Amino acid sequence: MASIPQSHADLLSKPAIASFATINPDGSPQVTPVWNDFDGTNILINTARGRKKTRNLDGNKRVALAIFDPQNPYRYLGIQGHVVEMTENGADAHIDKMAKKYLGKDKYPYRQPGEVRVIIKIAPDKVHTVG
Amino acid sequence: MASIPQSHADLLSKPAIASFATINPDGSPQVTPVWNDFDGTNILINTARGRKKTRNLDGNKRVALAIFDPQNPYRYLGIQGHVVEMTENGADAHIDKMAKKYLGKDKYPYRQPGEVRVIIKIAPDKVHTVG
Repeated sequence: MASIPQSHADLLSKPAIASFATINPDGSPQVTPVWNDFDGTNILINTARGRKKTRNLDGNKRVALAIFDPQNPYRYLGIQGHVVEMTENGADAHIDKMAKKYLGKDKYPYRQPGEVRVIIKIAPDKVHTVG
Repeated sequence: MASIPQSHADLLSKPAIASFATINPDGSPQVTPVWNDFDGTNILINTARGRKKTRNLDGNKRVALAIFDPQNPYRYLGIQGHVVEMTENGADAHIDKMAKKYLGKDKYPYRQPGEVRVIIKIAPDKVHTVG
């Protein structure tokens, strides 16, 4: 388990968007931008059940993240890790917390009828910093 | 082979940074920010021989890219593709072209002694747009 260097810890509290890479069932990579959170140990991503990301993670738990400084895309935190848990527990409250962080809104405004939110917990195995 | 929707073609001419995902030898994903170019058919990325990206691509040719609007990270072009060629041919002139596009400089300022530049040519297999 790797820890987050103090020099780049601000990227986890700022509304910094991450590029999140997962592995498709055919072994090819997929990459999408995601909001993210940090619980002091794991990186947390909030997504919806049934999306490609969650389906990929039902198969292959290995992921990579690059979390970019919104003020400077050449400064980032690179993380290789694995999913330790995917849970619906607390995921509705957590997406509202993310809406506050990223949009300044108390409630997540893009909720879809029937959508089941999921928190993906990622343990960092290797961390590197750039910039 | 997929084509680039006109609605998001501007992202290929703008100095838009891409998140580029490759597969490590152990099957896990890797993701890094890269400059990029478009030759009308393929996405071009310029890197240096011996870096993790090029080593990964010597093994697995499948890649993914998310090219972000520098004005709006929620607007992007997502590409899944495969590497059709890696060549040193023209790669030195091409990194200067990229320095012009991204830094406004005539010469790439970060060249390292002994560095061998390589153009990675990526054929888009699937393209989707967001925002």
